[in-house]
Amino acid sequence: MASLKKVVLAYSGGLDTSVIAKWLQETYNCEVVTFTADLGQGEEVEPARAKAKAMGIKEIYIEDLREEFVRDYVFPMFRANTIYEGEYLLGTSIARPLIAKRLVEIANETGADAISHGATGKGNDQVRFELGAYALKPGIKVIAPWREWDLNSREKLMTYCEQHNIPVDYAKQKTKSPYSMDANLLHISYEGGILEDPWQEAEEGMWRWSVSPEAAPDTPTYVTLTYKQGDVVAIDGVDMSPATVLEHLNKVGGANGIGRLDIVENRYVGMKSRGCYETPGGTILLKAHRAIESLTLDREVAHLKDAMMPRYAEMIYNGYWWSPERQMLQTAIDESQQVVNGEVRVKLYKGNVSIAGRRSDDSLFDDKIATFEDDAGAYNQQDAEGFIKLNALRMRIAAGKGRKLR
Amino acid sequence: MASLKKVVLAYSGGLDTSVIAKWLQETYNCEVVTFTADLGQGEEVEPARAKAKAMGIKEIYIEDLREEFVRDYVFPMFRANTIYEGEYLLGTSIARPLIAKRLVEIANETGADAISHGATGKGNDQVRFELGAYALKPGIKVIAPWREWDLNSREKLMTYCEQHNIPVDYAKQKTKSPYSMDANLLHISYEGGILEDPWQEAEEGMWRWSVSPEAAPDTPTYVTLTYKQGDVVAIDGVDMSPATVLEHLNKVGGANGIGRLDIVENRYVGMKSRGCYETPGGTILLKAHRAIESLTLDREVAHLKDAMMPRYAEMIYNGYWWSPERQMLQTAIDESQQVVNGEVRVKLYKGNVSIAGRRSDDSLFDDKIATFEDDAGAYNQQDAEGFIKLNALRMRIAAGKGRKLR
Amino acid sequence: MASLKKVVLAYSGGLDTSVIAKWLQETYNCEVVTFTADLGQGEEVEPARAKAKAMGIKEIYIEDLREEFVRDYVFPMFRANTIYEGEYLLGTSIARPLIAKRLVEIANETGADAISHGATGKGNDQVRFELGAYALKPGIKVIAPWREWDLNSREKLMTYCEQHNIPVDYAKQKTKSPYSMDANLLHISYEGGILEDPWQEAEEGMWRWSVSPEAAPDTPTYVTLTYKQGDVVAIDGVDMSPATVLEHLNKVGGANGIGRLDIVENRYVGMKSRGCYETPGGTILLKAHRAIESLTLDREVAHLKDAMMPRYAEMIYNGYWWSPERQMLQTAIDESQQVVNGEVRVKLYKGNVSIAGRRSDDSLFDDKIATFEDDAGAYNQQDAEGFIKLNALRMRIAAGKGRKLR
Amino acid sequence: MASLKKVVLAYSGGLDTSVIAKWLQETYNCEVVTFTADLGQGEEVEPARAKAKAMGIKEIYIEDLREEFVRDYVFPMFRANTIYEGEYLLGTSIARPLIAKRLVEIANETGADAISHGATGKGNDQVRFELGAYALKPGIKVIAPWREWDLNSREKLMTYCEQHNIPVDYAKQKTKSPYSMDANLLHISYEGGILEDPWQEAEEGMWRWSVSPEAAPDTPTYVTLTYKQGDVVAIDGVDMSPATVLEHLNKVGGANGIGRLDIVENRYVGMKSRGCYETPGGTILLKAHRAIESLTLDREVAHLKDAMMPRYAEMIYNGYWWSPERQMLQTAIDESQQVVNGEVRVKLYKGNVSIAGRRSDDSLFDDKIATFEDDAGAYNQQDAEGFIKLNALRMRIAAGKGRKLR
Repeated sequence: MASLKKVVLAYSGGLDTSVIAKWLQETYNCEVVTFTADLGQGEEVEPARAKAKAMGIKEIYIEDLREEFVRDYVFPMFRANTIYEGEYLLGTSIARPLIAKRLVEIANETGADAISHGATGKGNDQVRFELGAYALKPGIKVIAPWREWDLNSREKLMTYCEQHNIPVDYAKQKTKSPYSMDANLLHISYEGGILEDPWQEAEEGMWRWSVSPEAAPDTPTYVTLTYKQGDVVAIDGVDMSPATVLEHLNKVGGANGIGRLDIVENRYVGMKSRGCYETPGGTILLKAHRAIESLTLDREVAHLKDAMMPRYAEMIYNGYWWSPERQMLQTAIDESQQVVNGEVRVKLYKGNVSIAGRRSDDSLFDDKIATFEDDAGAYNQQDAEGFIKLNALRMRIAAGKGRKLR
Repeated sequence: MASLKKVVLAYSGGLDTSVIAKWLQETYNCEVVTFTADLGQGEEVEPARAKAKAMGIKEIYIEDLREEFVRDYVFPMFRANTIYEGEYLLGTSIARPLIAKRLVEIANETGADAISHGATGKGNDQVRFELGAYALKPGIKVIAPWREWDLNSREKLMTYCEQHNIPVDYAKQKTKSPYSMDANLLHISYEGGILEDPWQEAEEGMWRWSVSPEAAPDTPTYVTLTYKQGDVVAIDGVDMSPATVLEHLNKVGGANGIGRLDIVENRYVGMKSRGCYETPGGTILLKAHRAIESLTLDREVAHLKDAMMPRYAEMIYNGYWWSPERQMLQTAIDESQQVVNGEVRVKLYKGNVSIAGRRSDDSLFDDKIATFEDDAGAYNQQDAEGFIKLNALRMRIAAGKGRKLR
Repeated sequence: MASLKKVVLAYSGGLDTSVIAKWLQETYNCEVVTFTADLGQGEEVEPARAKAKAMGIKEIYIEDLREEFVRDYVFPMFRANTIYEGEYLLGTSIARPLIAKRLVEIANETGADAISHGATGKGNDQVRFELGAYALKPGIKVIAPWREWDLNSREKLMTYCEQHNIPVDYAKQKTKSPYSMDANLLHISYEGGILEDPWQEAEEGMWRWSVSPEAAPDTPTYVTLTYKQGDVVAIDGVDMSPATVLEHLNKVGGANGIGRLDIVENRYVGMKSRGCYETPGGTILLKAHRAIESLTLDREVAHLKDAMMPRYAEMIYNGYWWSPERQMLQTAIDESQQVVNGEVRVKLYKGNVSIAGRRSDDSLFDDKIATFEDDAGAYNQQDAEGFIKLNALRMRIAAGKGRKLR
Repeated sequence: MASLKKVVLAYSGGLDTSVIAKWLQETYNCEVVTFTADLGQGEEVEPARAKAKAMGIKEIYIEDLREEFVRDYVFPMFRANTIYEGEYLLGTSIARPLIAKRLVEIANETGADAISHGATGKGNDQVRFELGAYALKPGIKVIAPWREWDLNSREKLMTYCEQHNIPVDYAKQKTKSPYSMDANLLHISYEGGILEDPWQEAEEGMWRWSVSPEAAPDTPTYVTLTYKQGDVVAIDGVDMSPATVLEHLNKVGGANGIGRLDIVENRYVGMKSRGCYETPGGTILLKAHRAIESLTLDREVAHLKDAMMPRYAEMIYNGYWWSPERQMLQTAIDESQQVVNGEVRVKLYKGNVSIAGRRSDDSLFDDKIATFEDDAGAYNQQDAEGFIKLNALRMRIAAGKGRKLR
C-alpha cells in the first residue's frame, strides 16, 4: 500500500464521501483536504464545511464553479452539437474534467501527493476523474476507495460509521432515493433500482427537475435565444452569464416538461447500463444551436462537424476532455463558430422544443435564390444539367461497361 | 434539340405534369408514356388514367408501390438511424430512387429513349431522379422541362393550358395551397410561401397529417414494436407488412401530434432552403430503432454506425442511392442488424415519443454485471485501475515531459 | 492464485517458452498442452516436439498454418490497403488472431481451462492474444507469466533453467541476436538493442530477409500479378495458393532489397516504441493492390475505403480482429472487392516497387473519354460549367454576403 | 455572349495561352491583362512580357511567387501528410489556388470583370481555378476558351495563329513533347500520349526532373532536415527559406532517382485518367514529416490526423482550397504541429528514401518505459491485465450470451 502524505478528496458532504474521508485518514495515516464544488447540483455546499471540520479536516475548499463549468465546459461541448449514442447529452461526463482539474490544482496548492474520489469501480466517472488527473499531473497518486476497501454494502458502511463516530442522519437514510443520482447545472441522472430492468418504465415519482409533459402548462412558452460565436449570451433580449442562461433554461424547460430521457448506454468500461436523465436546458440548447447553425454555417463545415461529432462525444464520455485530441477537435469546432451569431425563437410545450424562427446578420440563407417565385436570374437553372451530368459520369461509365447495381 | 422517339414521364395527374405531357408531345414530337405511382401520398392515382388518355397517351402505367417503397427503401435507411443535418428524416429523398428505377424499367419495357419529370432546376429532386436514371441506364436521355421551357410563371402555364385544351380545375387552383408540397408514406413536406422567411413561424393551418400537440389527446398511447433484423415486423403483437407498419404508425403518431419539423437545410445544388415536414411514423421508428439497438448492438459497432451515418445520409439526400458507395455502406449496416431483434415499447403523448421499455433475446445488457448491488464477482473492480493507468500512459508521459494542455 | 487443471501454451520451442512450460507445471500444478505453429517464420517447428516431450508434456500440437494464415488473415487485410500510422504493414499484428483462435480451439478439444503465452506486459501482443481468446471463449483463463513471475532478467531465467533441468544451448545463447524478433510469412520484426535510440541508424547486419538495396541486382525484375476479387491468385501466369504467393513475393522482393522499414510507432498500451521491419512480399502486395483498384474501383468506393482504413488498421493493431466491428468493416471491404480483378505488372529494383502496367476486364478507365485527342462527343465540355457553377454556389453566396476566407 | 470590359488571363507565354489572349480580344472585344507566375516550373517567365506586348497587351503582370507558393500552400499541405488515393502528392492541385487568388487580386487592381485560363473542360484544373475565383470574388466572370471555342485541334490552332499573326516557333512545335505537362516547384506531371494505355510502361525518355534509379549514384546521400512546427526550416544545419528547402530537396532527390510515380487517378469531373509525376522533394518531405511526427505527436492526435487526411486531400484535389471546410481542417492540423519540432536524418539511394534517425526536444519517446531491459518500475506490467480485461468485457459478455464471431 502506497505511503501518502496528503490527499485531496472530492467531497460532497454526503455519507459516502464522509466515510471515505475518515477511511483515508485511518488507512493511509494521511492528511485529508476536502474539495466541495457547487456545480449547480441544487444542494447547499456550505454544510460540507462543518462536517469536514468535525472529522478533523484542516484544509477545506468550498467553491462556486457554476460559471466556469458552463462557460468553459458545457458551452464548448454544445458548440459541437454533442450527443453520445444518438441520445445522451453528456451531463455527467462534462462535469468531471472540471473537478479533476481543481483536485489537481488544490493538490499543487496544498502540497498533496494524492487525490481521491467516491466513484465506483464499475462506472465511467472513475475513468474521467483519473484520466484528467493523470493528464494534468502525471505523478499524482489516485485513491479510489470503492476499488480498494471491503465496505461494499450499506450495512458495512453503517457499521463503519458507528465505529468511527460519523454521524448518520437515519431519517434521511430511510427516505433515501432508491436511485444512484448525479446532478449539476446541466442535468440530473438516475441509475439503479428498478431501472436495472430495461423493460420497466421509470416511475413518475423518480423525476425531480421537470414536471411530466402531462402536468406541464396547456399553453406554450416562447423563448428567444441570442447567439454569439456559438454560445447563448442573452435570453429574450436580456444579457445573461453562461450559468444564468442554463439556470434560466432549466427552469423554463423543466416547467414545460422538457428534457427527460431514458436510455441504455454503453459504458467505457465495457458494460451496458440503463440510465434516466433530465436535461431541460441542454435539450433546448441543442435544438436551438442546430437552428442557428442551419442559417449561418456553410454546408460542408456543418457536415464536417457532424462527421467529427461522434468521435468528439466519445472523447468526452470516455474521459478524454483533458487530452490533445479533444483540444485539436475543439480548435476546429471553435473556428467554425465565429459566424454562429443571431437569434433563435423556440416554442416550449409539454415536452416539445420546436423552432419558431431563426434570423442572423450572418445568415447564408438567400431568399432571392431559394425562392419558388421568379428569381430574376439569380440562379441559372441550366447549370443544373452540367452539374448532374458530371456527377453522374463515373456511374454512367460503370453502367456503360456493364457494371451492375443491386 | 435532341430528337426523341418516346419518353416516360413521371406523371402525378396534376396540372403541372399534364402540361409537361402535352409540351413533350408538342416540343419533341414524340410519344409519351405516363407513370403514376402510389407511394402512399394519400391521393388517388387512378384518376390519372383518364387524364392521360384524354391527352392521347397510349401507354399508361399506374402502380401501387407502397410495399416496395417501405420494404426496400425506407426500412434499409432506418437501419442506419439516418438523419440529414441532425434533423431531417429524408422523406422526399428516399422516394426518388424508386421512381427513377421504375422510369428506367418502363423505358426498357416500352422502348423509350428518354425519361422526364416535373422537378425544378433549383431543387434536389432533379438530381435524385437523374443520377438514379443515369446510374441504371447510362444512355438514357433526360428531359427536365422546368430547366428548358419558358413557362416559368403560373400565368404562362394557364395560357398554355387554354391554348392546348388542357382542362384546368379553376376552383381547385383558387384554393391551391400556397406551399410546394410532396408526400409519400414516410412524410409530407412544405416549402415556399411564408416559409421563405426563416424567422416566420409556420401557420397551424399548413400542417395536414398531424394534429398539433395542443390538439392531441390528453392521455398517452402506448405502442409495442417488434423488431426482426432491424425492421419492425409487428405492432402490438400483430404481424404487419412494411407499408402497413408505416401506415399504422403514421396514423397513431399523427393523432398524437408527433413528427412535425421545421428546418433550414442545405441543398446539394448549393443553396439553403427552409422546409417543414411531417413524419409521424418515421419519428417513432427512429427513436424505437435506437432503443432496440441500444440493447442488442455491440458498442463499437454502434459507434461505427454513428460515424458512418452522416455520410450515408448525405448519399441519400444528394441522390446517390443508386451508387456503389451507398451499396457498400448498406452491406455493412445490414450486417450489423442481424442481432437487432426484440421489442420496444413507446409512449406517444402530445408530440413526444418516449421509450417505456425494451427487451430482447439478443440483449447484451447484463444485469449481473451492471448492478449497483453485489455482483458476486461478475466484475472485478480492480481491473479498472490497470485500464485507467494504461489509457492514461501516453498523457502521463507527455505531461511528464512538460507538454501542456490548455 | 487461480487453480488450473490444464493450460494450452503457445510454444515456440525456444528457451523462454520452455521455461514457461515448466513454470506453469510447477506454479499451477497443472497439465500443459503445447501448441506450435508454422506461420512461415522460417524455423523448423518439428523440433519443438522433442523438447516438449522432454518436459513431460503429453498433448503436443504442431501445425502448419501457413495457407490459413495468408488466406484468411493476410489477404483480407490487404484488401483494405491497410497501413498503421502511414507506414507499418501490421506483420506481427495479423498473426496473433490466428494463434488466439487455435489456442482456444485446442483448449476446447483438450478440455483445458486456460491458455498461456510468452508475450511481455509492455507490448501489444499480450493484448492481441488475450482479446482474441476472451472474444472467442469468454470464460477462458489467461496466464501471462511475464506479468506474474519474477524471472525478469536473463540471469534469473538461466538460474531457473539450471534448477529445473531445462537444457540451454549456451552456444546459441551467446550468439543470440541483440534484438527481440518476430517472424511469420508476412514479415520479420526487430526491436530493442541499439534501436532503443531512435536517432541511431539500424545496422546492416541486423536485417535477415532482404539484401540491402545497395547489394541488390543491377537489373530490374518484372513480375505480373493476377488479381481475383482483390487477392493475388497467380504470378507470372502461374496459379498459386495464397501462402505460395507470399513466399514467392518474399523471395523475389527480398532479393531486390524491397520492404525494409524503420519506424517509431504508438503501442496500444500507451508508449512509443521503435521497430524495424522487413516485409518484402507485403510491400509489393500493397503497391500492386492499389494499382489494380485504381483501374477497377469506383471513385467514391475507393475514397470510402481510404476513409475507413485508418480505423480498420487500428482494430488490427490493437488486437480487435475478433470483434464485431472488424467484421462489420470487413463485410464492406469485401463487398467492394468483387470487381477487383485483373493484372498488375510491377518492376522491382533495388528497394523500389514501381507499377509498370495494369489492365482488367473490369476496368473503369475509359480511354475514349479520358483522351486528350478528339473524343467524338463522348464527353461534353460544356457540362463542366454548370458543374463548377453549382459547386461554387454556396461559396459565392457566402462571399456575396461578405463572408471572408483567410 | 457576356459583354466584358477587361479580362485577366493566366498566361504562360506559350502558344496556347497566346492564342487565348488574341481570341479573347477578338471575341469579346475586351482588354486583356496577362498574369505570368514563376512557381518554380523551371522556365523563364520574363520572355512572356515581350510576347504579351507584341499582342498589344498593356497590363502585364510577371511575378516570382515561389516563396509564397511553398510557404502558404505546399508546407501547410504537407503538415497533414496529404496523399490523394494513397499515392498522389497533389503537385498540380496545390498550385491552382495561388493562381486563382492572384487572378482575382489583379482583377481587383486593374478593374477587370473577368478572368480566363487555358485549362480544358475535361480536367480538374478548370474546377480548381474557377472554384477559387468564385469563392474569392463571387461576381467575377470566368472565360474558359477550351469549353467555348471550336479551335479543338492542333491544326485549327495553327490556322488561327497564321490568320492572326501569332508567331509560332515551328521548330519547337515539331520537337514538342507528346505529353501534356505541368510543372511547379513541387512536381512535374505527364499525361496523354502512350500513357493513355494504362498497361504501357512510361518511357525512360519522358522523365525530366529525376535520373532513373538505375542511373543514380551507387553511394547513398544522407540529408538532415530540421523541423519547426511541422515545417522544414534548415537542411544539414543551414537555415533555408521554404522555396529554397524545396529546390534543394528536388535537386538532391532528383539526383538520387527519387519521386517518380505512375498512377491511374479519379478526376473530380468523373473520369479516370493516367498520370506520371516526378516529386523528388515532396517524396522526401512526406517521409520525413511522418518520421518527426512519429516522435513528437500524441498517438490519438496522429490517428485523428490520419482519419481526417483523405477528406483534406480530396478538398485540395477537387479545388476547395479556398473554402471554409478546408480552413476548418487546417486549423486543427496546424494546432497539432506546435510540437512537431526536431531533426530527421534521411538516406537517399537510387529511388529510396529511408529514415536513418529522428530526434527532438519535444520527443514523447520514453526509453525508460519502452526498454526491453529492466525499467526500474517506470511501467507496471500488472496494469496490462486490467486494461485487457475491461477492453474485452463487452466481447466476453457477448460471447457469454452466445453471440458468435465468424
